[in-house]
Amino acid sequence: MEDFFEVKTVAEAWKTLCSYWTPAPLGVETLSLLESLGRVLAVEVRSREDLPPYSRATVDGYAVIAKDTFGASQALPSMLRVVGEIPMGKVPEIALSPGEAARISTGGVLPEQADACVMLEHTVLLEDGVVLVEKPVAPGENVVRKGEDIPRGQVVLAAGRVLGPYELGALAATGETSVPVVKKPTVAVISSGDEIVPAGTTPAPGEIRDINSYSLAASVIKALGTPVLLGISRDTYEDVRRFVEAGIDRAELVVISGGSSVGTKDVVLKVLSDLGPPGVVVHGVAVRPGKPVILAVCRGKPVFGLPGHPVSCLTAFDLFVLPAIVRAYRGTLGLGDESLTPGPSLGRAGLLRAPTGPLRTGMAPNSVTARLSRNLSSAPGREDHIRVKLREEEGVLWADPVLGKSGLISVMVNSDGEIVIPLEREGLRAGEEVVVKLTNPAFPFPV
Amino acid sequence: MEDFFEVKTVAEAWKTLCSYWTPAPLGVETLSLLESLGRVLAVEVRSREDLPPYSRATVDGYAVIAKDTFGASQALPSMLRVVGEIPMGKVPEIALSPGEAARISTGGVLPEQADACVMLEHTVLLEDGVVLVEKPVAPGENVVRKGEDIPRGQVVLAAGRVLGPYELGALAATGETSVPVVKKPTVAVISSGDEIVPAGTTPAPGEIRDINSYSLAASVIKALGTPVLLGISRDTYEDVRRFVEAGIDRAELVVISGGSSVGTKDVVLKVLSDLGPPGVVVHGVAVRPGKPVILAVCRGKPVFGLPGHPVSCLTAFDLFVLPAIVRAYRGTLGLGDESLTPGPSLGRAGLLRAPTGPLRTGMAPNSVTARLSRNLSSAPGREDHIRVKLREEEGVLWADPVLGKSGLISVMVNSDGEIVIPLEREGLRAGEEVVVKLTNPAFPFPV
Repeated sequence: MEDFFEVKTVAEAWKTLCSYWTPAPLGVETLSLLESLGRVLAVEVRSREDLPPYSRATVDGYAVIAKDTFGASQALPSMLRVVGEIPMGKVPEIALSPGEAARISTGGVLPEQADACVMLEHTVLLEDGVVLVEKPVAPGENVVRKGEDIPRGQVVLAAGRVLGPYELGALAATGETSVPVVKKPTVAVISSGDEIVPAGTTPAPGEIRDINSYSLAASVIKALGTPVLLGISRDTYEDVRRFVEAGIDRAELVVISGGSSVGTKDVVLKVLSDLGPPGVVVHGVAVRPGKPVILAVCRGKPVFGLPGHPVSCLTAFDLFVLPAIVRAYRGTLGLGDESLTPGPSLGRAGLLRAPTGPLRTGMAPNSVTARLSRNLSSAPGREDHIRVKLREEEGVLWADPVLGKSGLISVMVNSDGEIVIPLEREGLRAGEEVVVKLTNPAFPFPV
Repeated sequence: MEDFFEVKTVAEAWKTLCSYWTPAPLGVETLSLLESLGRVLAVEVRSREDLPPYSRATVDGYAVIAKDTFGASQALPSMLRVVGEIPMGKVPEIALSPGEAARISTGGVLPEQADACVMLEHTVLLEDGVVLVEKPVAPGENVVRKGEDIPRGQVVLAAGRVLGPYELGALAATGETSVPVVKKPTVAVISSGDEIVPAGTTPAPGEIRDINSYSLAASVIKALGTPVLLGISRDTYEDVRRFVEAGIDRAELVVISGGSSVGTKDVVLKVLSDLGPPGVVVHGVAVRPGKPVILAVCRGKPVFGLPGHPVSCLTAFDLFVLPAIVRAYRGTLGLGDESLTPGPSLGRAGLLRAPTGPLRTGMAPNSVTARLSRNLSSAPGREDHIRVKLREEEGVLWADPVLGKSGLISVMVNSDGEIVIPLEREGLRAGEEVVVKLTNPAFPFPV
C-alpha cells in the first residue's frame, strides 16, 4: 500500500491511480443517427461503396469530351452538338460521341465517354441545338470521379471519434443509419456532511444546501457520463460506507464530495481503506485547491474523495474524474493509456488532439490566451489553479484573478475560467501570457 | 421588395433579414435543476437570503475573539480557554467571552462574540483545556461573514445565462430547484432534390443519400434548437411549396437545403416569393461557399434556402441560421438586437461575450489561432470560408487549407475547422496568423 501521507504531484497521483485501476469495458449500444450526436463511435467505419458511386458534375453546364474543347476561345469557340439533357437522380441513357455535349446540372451523372464539364458561363447556346464552348477544359475538370471522394473500403471515421454534425453527415453519406457507440459510464455522486441538506429545502440554522450533487452531476454529463445521484451521507463511518458501497454496486466510478473537516476526512479515508485492497492509493495532491483529494480503488472501481468547497470540488473533478471517464472510454476501445498530464498546462498544443482523432484526455479546446493583470505567487512544488475573470481593453484580453478569500457562489458565477501556475513556477508575473480554460458554458456547444 | 439580384455582404444580408423579421417569443418552461443543464435562463435570479446565512469558519481550528490573539507568537503565545466544540450543521449554543476559544471545523458557524478563526496548525492544545495560539489573527480572518458571499437580494444569475455546472451549483446554493428556461425554438429541416434519397436506403444509379437532414438537425441541436425533420422534397413547385408550408406551420424557423441546380433554385425562389410578403428578402450573398443562399420571411417566419453541398450548407447554417436562433432567444428575453456581424471575423474578442453575460450571437469560443501554411487568394468584395486541417510542428500550430476540388465527405471528416478571408482582403499570406473556428466536436463539451 502507498504511503498515505506523501503528497504527490497531479501527474504522480494520476499514474498511481492508473496502476491500480483497470477499467472494465463499458459495452456498446446501437443508436439511430441523430441519437448518436455527441457520442463516441465504438467501431471504425469504412465505406462500403465508392463515393460518389458515379462520376458527377460539380457545376451547371455541359458534359463534354475534354479533347473537343482544347484550344477553344471566345474568338474561336468549339462548336458541339447538344444531344440531350441529363436528368437529375438517374444514370443517363445518353453516351457522347466526339463533337457532342449534354446539358448537365451540379450533381448530375456524367454520360459515357464524357470526361469533363464546361461551366454554363463559358458557353453560348445557339438555337439550332449547337453550343459554343468558349474556354477549354482539361479531362476531369468540373467533375468528381467515381470513388474520388471516398473509395470503397476506406476508413471514413476511426473508432473513438466524437460525433458532431460533420460526422453525422459522413455517416449518412455512407448509409450508416444505425451507429454503434460506446455506452456512457455511470458515475455515482455522493455529497457528505452533517451540515448538508437537500437543495430543495430551507436549511435550518447552521445547515447549508447541497451544491456539489448538482454541479458534479452536470460535470459528469458534460464529460459524456451518466450521473447516478445517491444523495447526502452523514459523517458517520456506517453511513459513508453504506453510500460508497451503493455507489460501487450501481456505477462504474464513484465520487464523494465533502469531508473537508478533519473528522469527516478521516471517516472517508477509513471507509475507502477498508474497502480495499488496495483501498486508498493517493491521499493529498500538490495542487491548490484540491490538496485533500483522496483517490482510491475499491472492489475494482475508482473512488474519488473530492473537497467539499464547491469550486475546489469542480477543479478536482476536472483533474481526476474527467480523465478517468476518458480512460474508461479508451479502455473500452482498446486504445490504451496515453502519456498524460491531466488537466493543466496543456496550452494550445492540447487542442490538436481533439478534432479528428479518437477521444483523448487532456483536450482543452475551450480555452483562450490572455494577459495576466497582476502578479500571482505560488509555493514551489505545488500546482495552483486560480479562477479568473476576462476583460477586454483596447483589443487586449486581460485575465483578472478572482481572489475573494471565501466567495463560493460569487466565484462560481462571476469568473470565466481558470489558469494554472505550474508546479515548477513560484508565481506568474503581471503582463505574462496565460492560457485560460473557460469553465462557463460556451454557445453554440461544440458537440 | 428587395432587389433579388444584388449580391449582399454577410452583414448586409443579416441586417436585411432582421429588418423584415420580428421573432415571436419562444415561451418559458420550468425544469428541474439537472434538466436545465445547457439551457437558457429565462429570468433574473436573485438570492432570497444572505449567503452564507451565518458567519462561518473557512479553516479547521479555533473560533476566537481576534483581539485576544494580537501580539501572539511562538515565543509568546496567547493562552485561551477552550469552552467547547462547535457541532457541524448547528448554530452553537456557546458564546465566547474574552480569553475564550471554541474548536471549530471548516464550515462551522461562529459562536457569538467570535470574529475570527485561528488555523489548527498555529495552535497547541494543552491537556488542561487551554490552547496556545502562536500567530495573531485579524478580525474577519479565516471567516466568511453572513451575506459576504451573496447578500440577500443580489442578482446571482442574469436572464439569458446559459446554464453549466457552475451555474447549477449557484442555483442549488440559493435553493432554486425549479428553473424557468426559455423554450427551445423549433427548426423545420427540409432536403430538396430529385436525386436525394433517404440515408437508410441504397441509392439507385444516379441518386445520392440525404446528408443535410442529419448534419443540419445536429447543428440545430448544437444551437439549442429542436429540429423537426420533414424529409425530402422533389424539385417541383407543388412539392417544395407543400414542404415549406408544413415547415411554417410546425416550426419557428424553416431551413431548406439543396436546389443548387439552376432549375431547382428557381423553384425554391418562386415558392418563397409566393409565400410573401415580403417573401424573398436576400438572394445571393458575397460569401464562398454560400453564395446562392436565399433568405426569406414567409408568414412572419424566417425561411433559409441553403446550398445543397454538405459543407457549404453547414457554413451557411453558421452564418445565418445560428444567429437567427440566438435572435429568437434574445427576442424572448427582451434583449434586443446586437450590432452583429454574424459568424466570421470575430477573432479573440468574440470570446469575451460568452461566459458570464447573456446568450449572444457571434460567440466563437471554440477557436484557436494558428499560422497559415500557404498563400490563399480570394476575390475582393467576397468573404471566403476555407476549411483547414491543424498540424503541430515543433510547437507551432499550422493551418493547412483543405482545397480538394470536390471532396464532400472527405472534407467533412478530415478537416478540423474553418478560417475566413475577410471581405476587404484579397487573400492571406503563408505564415500569417489566422483564427480557426473548430467545427469538429470538442470534448469535454463546454456545456
